[in-house]
Amino acid sequence: MILSLGISPQPGALERAQKLLLELGMQYQVLHTPNATVIVVTSDADALPGHLFTQLDGIEKVVRLGNRSPLSRPGADGALGVTFGHGPAAVTVGGGAAPLIVAGPCSVESREHILETTAAVKTAGARALRGGAYKPRTSPYDFQGLGLEGLKYLREAGEAFQMPVISEVMSADQIAGAAPYVDVFQVGARNMYNYELLKELGRQPKPVLLKRAMSATVDELVQSAEYILSEGNPWVILCERGIRTFETRVRNTLDLSCVPVLRSLTNLPVMVDPSHAVGKRDFIRTMSRAAIACGADGLLLETHLVPAKSISDAAQAISPAVLSEIVKDAQVIYNALNPKITVQSGAISQ
Amino acid sequence: MILSLGISPQPGALERAQKLLLELGMQYQVLHTPNATVIVVTSDADALPGHLFTQLDGIEKVVRLGNRSPLSRPGADGALGVTFGHGPAAVTVGGGAAPLIVAGPCSVESREHILETTAAVKTAGARALRGGAYKPRTSPYDFQGLGLEGLKYLREAGEAFQMPVISEVMSADQIAGAAPYVDVFQVGARNMYNYELLKELGRQPKPVLLKRAMSATVDELVQSAEYILSEGNPWVILCERGIRTFETRVRNTLDLSCVPVLRSLTNLPVMVDPSHAVGKRDFIRTMSRAAIACGADGLLLETHLVPAKSISDAAQAISPAVLSEIVKDAQVIYNALNPKITVQSGAISQ
Amino acid sequence: MILSLGISPQPGALERAQKLLLELGMQYQVLHTPNATVIVVTSDADALPGHLFTQLDGIEKVVRLGNRSPLSRPGADGALGVTFGHGPAAVTVGGGAAPLIVAGPCSVESREHILETTAAVKTAGARALRGGAYKPRTSPYDFQGLGLEGLKYLREAGEAFQMPVISEVMSADQIAGAAPYVDVFQVGARNMYNYELLKELGRQPKPVLLKRAMSATVDELVQSAEYILSEGNPWVILCERGIRTFETRVRNTLDLSCVPVLRSLTNLPVMVDPSHAVGKRDFIRTMSRAAIACGADGLLLETHLVPAKSISDAAQAISPAVLSEIVKDAQVIYNALNPKITVQSGAISQ
Amino acid sequence: MILSLGISPQPGALERAQKLLLELGMQYQVLHTPNATVIVVTSDADALPGHLFTQLDGIEKVVRLGNRSPLSRPGADGALGVTFGHGPAAVTVGGGAAPLIVAGPCSVESREHILETTAAVKTAGARALRGGAYKPRTSPYDFQGLGLEGLKYLREAGEAFQMPVISEVMSADQIAGAAPYVDVFQVGARNMYNYELLKELGRQPKPVLLKRAMSATVDELVQSAEYILSEGNPWVILCERGIRTFETRVRNTLDLSCVPVLRSLTNLPVMVDPSHAVGKRDFIRTMSRAAIACGADGLLLETHLVPAKSISDAAQAISPAVLSEIVKDAQVIYNALNPKITVQSGAISQ
Repeated sequence: MILSLGISPQPGALERAQKLLLELGMQYQVLHTPNATVIVVTSDADALPGHLFTQLDGIEKVVRLGNRSPLSRPGADGALGVTFGHGPAAVTVGGGAAPLIVAGPCSVESREHILETTAAVKTAGARALRGGAYKPRTSPYDFQGLGLEGLKYLREAGEAFQMPVISEVMSADQIAGAAPYVDVFQVGARNMYNYELLKELGRQPKPVLLKRAMSATVDELVQSAEYILSEGNPWVILCERGIRTFETRVRNTLDLSCVPVLRSLTNLPVMVDPSHAVGKRDFIRTMSRAAIACGADGLLLETHLVPAKSISDAAQAISPAVLSEIVKDAQVIYNALNPKITVQSGAISQ
Repeated sequence: MILSLGISPQPGALERAQKLLLELGMQYQVLHTPNATVIVVTSDADALPGHLFTQLDGIEKVVRLGNRSPLSRPGADGALGVTFGHGPAAVTVGGGAAPLIVAGPCSVESREHILETTAAVKTAGARALRGGAYKPRTSPYDFQGLGLEGLKYLREAGEAFQMPVISEVMSADQIAGAAPYVDVFQVGARNMYNYELLKELGRQPKPVLLKRAMSATVDELVQSAEYILSEGNPWVILCERGIRTFETRVRNTLDLSCVPVLRSLTNLPVMVDPSHAVGKRDFIRTMSRAAIACGADGLLLETHLVPAKSISDAAQAISPAVLSEIVKDAQVIYNALNPKITVQSGAISQ
Repeated sequence: MILSLGISPQPGALERAQKLLLELGMQYQVLHTPNATVIVVTSDADALPGHLFTQLDGIEKVVRLGNRSPLSRPGADGALGVTFGHGPAAVTVGGGAAPLIVAGPCSVESREHILETTAAVKTAGARALRGGAYKPRTSPYDFQGLGLEGLKYLREAGEAFQMPVISEVMSADQIAGAAPYVDVFQVGARNMYNYELLKELGRQPKPVLLKRAMSATVDELVQSAEYILSEGNPWVILCERGIRTFETRVRNTLDLSCVPVLRSLTNLPVMVDPSHAVGKRDFIRTMSRAAIACGADGLLLETHLVPAKSISDAAQAISPAVLSEIVKDAQVIYNALNPKITVQSGAISQ
Repeated sequence: MILSLGISPQPGALERAQKLLLELGMQYQVLHTPNATVIVVTSDADALPGHLFTQLDGIEKVVRLGNRSPLSRPGADGALGVTFGHGPAAVTVGGGAAPLIVAGPCSVESREHILETTAAVKTAGARALRGGAYKPRTSPYDFQGLGLEGLKYLREAGEAFQMPVISEVMSADQIAGAAPYVDVFQVGARNMYNYELLKELGRQPKPVLLKRAMSATVDELVQSAEYILSEGNPWVILCERGIRTFETRVRNTLDLSCVPVLRSLTNLPVMVDPSHAVGKRDFIRTMSRAAIACGADGLLLETHLVPAKSISDAAQAISPAVLSEIVKDAQVIYNALNPKITVQSGAISQ
């Protein structure tokens, strides 16, 4: 930690800062440069709250160094592969694996609907199934999801087609009931700061797919992952799904540069959900290509048999035909950029 | 709802749209203008999901009209006054009342701490007490709050100094336990989209102070309020606390124009929390003046006896002396702009 | 300047940094803290380009200290008052003067129009006149302004009603021609980064009203002012007019916290233009109150006799009646917050 | 154009709107829906200023339909190819051509420097040369560029290595002097709204590379292009270079989704400059891959022999070795996604 007192320190500012540091048991060194007088804290200041010093009169700037999210740091073991599902349905995302395509409807609309849709996404080449049973809707008058019943249908469909299942839970009290039916718990963008939920998910063993909140910095995403990791669950998959900006032509601005940035900060797998980002079907295939090209570990794609009829987020649901194209695009791009690994068309195998 | 097919409608687009509208039982009228062919839906389309039409090939734009948040609409009864606390401690915010100043520490740090601080904020002129027992922290390594114990101390302090109590709950399961100790439940910015929490708070009778999420549009804030109102609880207080922008000189950009905008959309009281917005003590007094001048129904201010020692958010805690100045500023500005109402110095009384 | 090599410096990173510093003739000190190894540059690094070090492999962070905009720093002389106009029409903004209200139409539409409008804004209490002759329009098909002819009418109106004149120039080649007709050159938000224009304006003696670009940080605004100041012209007036955010209910988000922030960084006057920010007439009066309350040195207000008929930006033009109310509000608030200075109703005098 | 009077039209609102429309010679139809009363303007309202109606009391919303940028609309001729340079050095960007890689130093630092660097980027596989002679710097104390002298060196280098030249001009008065030395005029992000400059560039015949301003919407970029096109110059190349957001880990957020969005709006070529977006060398190669994968017509890359020593923007300059890798990546990805076109390794030929 470095405290800058600016170019002309206020009277008493240096003494106040030194006094506080001594009280906190911190060692430090004072340096005078032409641009500012600085205090470099040479003890471990990681545990000190961010604002403890900025409030001191005369402290112009506080610079935090170091990484406050140690558990997800890139390590000697390399990138983390997260495996989920069982038996022949098991898949791995990250850790050097070929990109994992996860697809399914935005919401589980009925038993029949999810069975039909799963058949189609399986055929198209997806290897894991997503579907919403608990839906966070901006307006209370929108469809809220089938709840536990929806999860049962989802699991049934996953079993029938040998695909592991990812679904969202919105509060800690949904975890226990959902656990038998999901292989991965999804935390939606709106819940990235829901620390109670994150801590609870950290206390159970199934992987967690953590979506970046619409205005979260990459650092905040990593810190939210840290909440889960710090409770004991190491299986966290990060997911970029677009950030909120001033641009109105898309629903959210897909921030693909977060993929390489996250790789430099953490060893966790990084997936991309273009569906909620670009929000228009026409662009999803294009941005899926870009996501694979910049190294995403996988894609999350909303797919619907008849996209027009999707109860929720219909604008961004793609058809199984388009999903099939995206799966092929992903193989083609991945193979082209990773010539040592050969993958067959149809489904990406490892 | 209006669908635009653009200046040169795609072949079949009009028919597809008409077919879907008929299936949905909607009546409509097609109009050709030089800039676009449009379909004006003349039935009630409020309940239709937002994206049901954008996904149709050839629909260039979908325009939603109307207000999907009817319960908080400005009504014949005028602005809503929310009263909380009991006996001599009762206060009202909104509904034409003079601005309510709410102050207290960011966190309840100990019983002694909260008692001392409450005495000081009372003397300074605040009329309601805030304090955090459940703290949402960006990093899991930051102080998480005293929990229920902290709420008890908070209540004790409120009783001792005849001030009603506002405190945050972070999940639905904290509501019942906290209820005896708080007069108003606060929903933090990070939980503005936590619909489960909002619905639960809508099912109980105490007022809810709803903070705008850091990247929420004003419309989303109103829709979150709608979640609470639609469950039966009419007592919602909105609170602006700064939005996330590109500006780095402040923690969040205080968006005061949301005050008049919200007045045009809803009858709910609107408070302003400059502490979390400007994030630096020096600016809090200035922005408090601006907030009162543009008609905010009240202020939320973090106050600490010795701001330097505040365990959390120290940079933005103001001292009781500054709080006292802000209380006086608020009276002065409010009196100046509302000459019919006379308020005495020291404490704003109604 | 401080260079951080992170918690585990890359092999060779420290040596590379030291080598470069020596080549540049910089002195430095290396400090090891538990969070990072840092190099504190103890020579004057102000002139070094921002990125010279970030590109070195292994440099995790570069922290610049100091103020690269020395000419506008708050100084021993206190806040700068900028005086313009001549004789009885002279006015001062900043430097402790009462708020200056500047008003006029968005565009000079005709000689008759500007004479009528000026009469009305004078009566309403404004003390300086604004009007656009050179208009920057987002689309080439919008009205582009009357040019030099418009400036002549503007000057004529200013003379007739004893009001100094502020008008925008959009390129350096317009300066000489406009100079006889304006008292203050306005630089529009879209030209805040037009360094050629800024330098030219710095080489002439008339004051410059510099508008903050819609996505400029406060620091960038100050640096643009520095461009003008560094060429020799000390008379710069800063102006906040709203920043671009995700919020759609207003045209731009008025960032009033930049007023106190700018006061801490510079001694230049700071005005506020709520017209281009909130963009809706209803809110302009409210936000004008807030601007004065947080210490703005003045307001810029678009006014039109019949706002409905304004050729450009009609939505935000206020009527002279509303302008008159704003002038009174400003006096009332300023008097209330500055009790030693007595100002009469109608027009603020010094 | 559609005017909405909201769900409960204000008294007189409909009449006021109808009156204004009649005065303007507009035909219209009034429709009552359960959500709002709307007026659909059935005449050509394209030429009416955006705000003419929003100012009317009682107009809740104004919806503009149609495209106010007709000249760049996707047309029957398909995507536009822009050819520049002469003889063997001629290249084409857009119009279905393979991606064009443009590289060169941020600034022309000296004659020797630009000759050496051009040799290296030619060898690495770039086919056009960029270099700055007129530099827009945020601070007046940063290196401002070599001006006309720099352009001469740039041209000399281009001739020597048979590469066409792209360089930035910052004001209209630089155009004539620069014309003999450049094949393409670049308009920097800070000048995207410099309409005087755009109009002048529209009046001359050389292509213009128009960079998106850091907070420009895609629509504003297209409208700025329209300024150039409307003056008679059809050769405009658009360029995404990152937008300003809240994210602090990158210099600007690269908005790759603007590539497919722009394709839907215009037939102009779309290039991507990852150098100014991601701002860190490590990420530039990754994002270049993503840009090619989502269909960008080309890349602009800052390259320096010894990136550490680049006078400006050193952090983002890549070495010729990395440039060479990017050129190969681009071929590999382009070939993989466009199997009918065969391109050899080393340099992309058409």
